[in-house]
Amino acid sequence: MATGQEPVTPPEGEQRTDDAAFPADPAAPARPESADQAAELDELRDRWRRALADLDNLRKRHAKELERVRGEERARTAAAWLPVLDNLERALAHADADPSAVLKGIETVRDQAVEVLRGLGYPRHEETGVPFDPTRHEVVGVLDDPGAERNTVAQVVSPGYGADGSQLRPAFVMVSKRQE
Amino acid sequence: MATGQEPVTPPEGEQRTDDAAFPADPAAPARPESADQAAELDELRDRWRRALADLDNLRKRHAKELERVRGEERARTAAAWLPVLDNLERALAHADADPSAVLKGIETVRDQAVEVLRGLGYPRHEETGVPFDPTRHEVVGVLDDPGAERNTVAQVVSPGYGADGSQLRPAFVMVSKRQE
Repeated sequence: MATGQEPVTPPEGEQRTDDAAFPADPAAPARPESADQAAELDELRDRWRRALADLDNLRKRHAKELERVRGEERARTAAAWLPVLDNLERALAHADADPSAVLKGIETVRDQAVEVLRGLGYPRHEETGVPFDPTRHEVVGVLDDPGAERNTVAQVVSPGYGADGSQLRPAFVMVSKRQE
Repeated sequence: MATGQEPVTPPEGEQRTDDAAFPADPAAPARPESADQAAELDELRDRWRRALADLDNLRKRHAKELERVRGEERARTAAAWLPVLDNLERALAHADADPSAVLKGIETVRDQAVEVLRGLGYPRHEETGVPFDPTRHEVVGVLDDPGAERNTVAQVVSPGYGADGSQLRPAFVMVSKRQE
């Protein structure tokens, strides 16, 4: 537990039987509140046990819910790709007709795949000329470009996918290094 | 709550002050257990409140965890498709060279996509001749085929994806209807 407060097992049938050990004070008036307190004790014990049972149920329910949510999200995300695969197969089915036309169709499928990623929250990014950003770019090389600002993206080797805070993959880039 | 036991707000500073209302019994001996009981009350109250605090923390933590798991699973599932898209683009980049050869390469990309789905737990299924199974097939038509067993899959119009218990999409099929 993050709180460091592991609930302990409720004491079963806990009863005080050592009245005699309590030193009687003859000056104190008889305080017959013990019956009230006993009732309160019972009630509190009951509430505490119910809270512990709730904790236990919550843990079990949550474990199941995590599995369910994980499966749901996997299915939702995978299902978004089925139309892409369907269209790819449809295009390939006509491959014998006119390969060049088929390739045009497959370019449309590629665009559709990029749209699917955007829809899932991972827009494509492949801008050049922007400042190098370590959260979105991964440097694979350096280019000496006299005309470019230092530390800007000179060339994108492979596009990145993702928005701020959730990069699916950084763009692999060549950055400019101004000649001094 | 599934248990129907919604924990109530802990009573703040709950103290008995109506000792006088308790009927004193002169025959009963003074039972000075109230100090022990008061200590026990305090301890139980403390435990109960901690259990309620644990419950509250657990609920908050779970809500965050569900979001985290959802995002993780979405990213994991989407990332599995990036190599497919990369290869599709790589193939298209050579489209001017030899369209027929490029199409062969794209067939490999299609196979890769099918493998990705299998890896995510959604194997492709497109068998004919198998008994119609409403959990895996969706009927789009009926074929009169004298040679086929009644109620078997005669033709798959579109493949299905998924394993037992988690069908991403049923296969769309034509079923056989034996002529009587």
